[in-house]
Amino acid sequence: MYRYKLVGQNDKPVYELLYEYIRNDILTGKLVSGDRLPSKRNMASDNGISVTTVVNAYNQLLMEGYIKSFEKKGYFVSDISALPKVKKKNLYENPLYVEDNWFADFGSNNILFKNFPHFTWKKVVREVLSTYETELIMRGHPFGNEELKSEIADYLYRNRGITVSPELIVIGAGIEFLYNRLINVLPSSSTYAVENPGYKKIPKLYNSFSLNWKSIDMDDEGINMRDLETVNPNIVHVSPEHHYPLGTFMPLKRRQELLAWGCGAANRYIIEDDFDCEFRYGSKPMPALKSLDVCEKVIYMNTFSKTLSPAIRISYMVLPEKLMRKYIESTYFFTNSASTLEQLALALFIKKGYFERHIRRIKKLYRQEGETLREILLTNKDIPIISLSETQNGTHILVKLRTELSDDEVREKTAKKGVQVNFLSDFCTKLEAKYEHTLILNFSDLDEDTQKEAISRLGSVFTVTT
Amino acid sequence: MYRYKLVGQNDKPVYELLYEYIRNDILTGKLVSGDRLPSKRNMASDNGISVTTVVNAYNQLLMEGYIKSFEKKGYFVSDISALPKVKKKNLYENPLYVEDNWFADFGSNNILFKNFPHFTWKKVVREVLSTYETELIMRGHPFGNEELKSEIADYLYRNRGITVSPELIVIGAGIEFLYNRLINVLPSSSTYAVENPGYKKIPKLYNSFSLNWKSIDMDDEGINMRDLETVNPNIVHVSPEHHYPLGTFMPLKRRQELLAWGCGAANRYIIEDDFDCEFRYGSKPMPALKSLDVCEKVIYMNTFSKTLSPAIRISYMVLPEKLMRKYIESTYFFTNSASTLEQLALALFIKKGYFERHIRRIKKLYRQEGETLREILLTNKDIPIISLSETQNGTHILVKLRTELSDDEVREKTAKKGVQVNFLSDFCTKLEAKYEHTLILNFSDLDEDTQKEAISRLGSVFTVTT
Repeated sequence: MYRYKLVGQNDKPVYELLYEYIRNDILTGKLVSGDRLPSKRNMASDNGISVTTVVNAYNQLLMEGYIKSFEKKGYFVSDISALPKVKKKNLYENPLYVEDNWFADFGSNNILFKNFPHFTWKKVVREVLSTYETELIMRGHPFGNEELKSEIADYLYRNRGITVSPELIVIGAGIEFLYNRLINVLPSSSTYAVENPGYKKIPKLYNSFSLNWKSIDMDDEGINMRDLETVNPNIVHVSPEHHYPLGTFMPLKRRQELLAWGCGAANRYIIEDDFDCEFRYGSKPMPALKSLDVCEKVIYMNTFSKTLSPAIRISYMVLPEKLMRKYIESTYFFTNSASTLEQLALALFIKKGYFERHIRRIKKLYRQEGETLREILLTNKDIPIISLSETQNGTHILVKLRTELSDDEVREKTAKKGVQVNFLSDFCTKLEAKYEHTLILNFSDLDEDTQKEAISRLGSVFTVTT
Repeated sequence: MYRYKLVGQNDKPVYELLYEYIRNDILTGKLVSGDRLPSKRNMASDNGISVTTVVNAYNQLLMEGYIKSFEKKGYFVSDISALPKVKKKNLYENPLYVEDNWFADFGSNNILFKNFPHFTWKKVVREVLSTYETELIMRGHPFGNEELKSEIADYLYRNRGITVSPELIVIGAGIEFLYNRLINVLPSSSTYAVENPGYKKIPKLYNSFSLNWKSIDMDDEGINMRDLETVNPNIVHVSPEHHYPLGTFMPLKRRQELLAWGCGAANRYIIEDDFDCEFRYGSKPMPALKSLDVCEKVIYMNTFSKTLSPAIRISYMVLPEKLMRKYIESTYFFTNSASTLEQLALALFIKKGYFERHIRRIKKLYRQEGETLREILLTNKDIPIISLSETQNGTHILVKLRTELSDDEVREKTAKKGVQVNFLSDFCTKLEAKYEHTLILNFSDLDEDTQKEAISRLGSVFTVTT
């Protein structure tokens, strides 16, 4: 007699409970191949349920293959011996990964709560929710929302000197995603140039696609042209306005040389990663390399992660027409990766002038934060500072140290005090002595009190050992 | 004398206008290498502006390299001859790409306005906007929002029989993105099996990563095991609950065989694409293949594109622990691609029971839409129907046709009447005769009136030619 506890369980229909019990008995070996199930009528009366309920449960088991029926003989358990027994997986006692928990993380590029325009952004999102209906749920255009692309084109004209049709702009949920797609329209069997030092994610990204890449040295004006000619890659990734982490600005002459290099062969392209362009404090930024791109060799990339928030997943790239035509062919079947709600909100945010107002506001805040950090560093007596970088751009300071400690030793000692730091050497694909002993301090999400305490902790690392 | 129109322009500061005029004169060749600019004092008095304004403009030009200064001699235009002249790019007269504009698109998988829970979804988004502050702007966890992963784990337990720790779940802005990342943790030099016929995007995706893939035949129970053994790939992509486009359901026996195959070699993995699991109408869906995954060989993937909306960019995958450990190593440096706002909204939407209520509601609607389309097809006298597929699952019907016309001929004639149709042959990587002359009619975004008119237009294609 098969009697099951068929009531008061999870609000599931009774037939589903019966089905689960029998299925479980089969999977755990209580019922084995060839066992005969009670007739529908007996199962019903044993459990005080209707025959229809049993029929529903048996049918589900039949359909899924757990039991078989033979006319006039009844229902029999199938042979599921090929299947090992299932055991439940519990939550891990030791988590597979844990969140970092730093007192201050100079390696992060996050933003400060007070530096985000919460009120205006939420207002705009709410306005989009009230204004749009169908647009919010229909599959978005594979290359991005029309209104946002148009606002970005205008923004690029006003602020980066780029004149571009919105049709050449592609929106994506992050630079990584856009890179994935971009690689598919660049010449296959390309060699990619990685600036040394340079933005860490780029070689990692290239590795993740098994791409062929080589390091190119940097000099005071940006990527070294002689090294570029010697190593001879055909795709170059640069940030002419403000190199990360060196902070190098590429002057017009080097830009001309780089563009001329790009025009020199059909398979050459230049990726201009302009992620830090908005944060020049003394003067206005130079128009983008893309604005001088007469040979159609520059792919312009930018993101709103840094100017707005990394939680709002919108980045974009501007493709030369030839690559865009290839992109249309190869990528039309992909759905756009960016949220339609956020795309529409951002379009409105730019259109109403809120975005540029916000940029002006955080430029002042970042400049102030940078100057404060500089002050704190200069008045600290414990850190053996040789030199500090200027704070005319960006949201990080380079601190050259006079120390016997290796970069890893400083990092470890500092970490024990709850402070995370990176070094220039972390960003080198080919390590050179001149890039050692140089801290990179990102300050975009550290307020003054945190800066003070963190720098004091950093200083104590040197007093104890020397 | 250099006199420029320096007022009433775009609200830009005057120094910026002056800078732009001079820069433009240099770029367009009005000023050439070696030309001497007026002294600061003369430029100021010529234009009725202050000397400071001129200094600012000259400094900007100096910094960017457009001019040089020689002490006691003044300012001179640099040599920019290496740079070809810039011409402005206007908007394209003929657009590079155009939106399709169909009366009815049976190829689309969009959703009907009336089938989306606008009110509840917007309510939840507004609640998230009011509840959260910092979370909405901080960089999200690389693997996805904690609350959403936890809700998904519970949902999978309730509805798909999967017991999984949220730590093994990865969120992404779409299946394409997750696939990108997944490929990086699967054994390199893998051979991927593509079901023939099967979901079109999969081989396209594999091509875009230059992966090695091979077609495997389908039979009535899913992927053909004999063909799988013969062709011998090591990664298989299947949809056991409801294959697209054939609609095949994989019974337990075949599942056991497939799992046993997966357990048979270290480099074998099975990708279970469960995108259509929610839409079985007669009975409840069978627990996922993943629920029987004792060898840790199944990667489970699903998306909210179909159950909620393709404009909400959230998909997820469940990795076996071994792959998750590899994933943590290789992908920790990537930012999550999904919007934090939408992740939090979806978590709340599931938590409050709205999601499962919505699924129950659209199941009824889709079942009704499917039955209506079946009726319309059966009463249409013009379409030479041999057979129709059942409407027990999913949101498409297969229509086997008796016609001399090739699939492409029918498609072209139908397109002229504003109706887009796909054929089973479009989904074949290896064409077989049995898959010809079979229409695929997706109906998830077509209301009854549109269905009627579209089917009538489809019918007229056959009356004119026969």
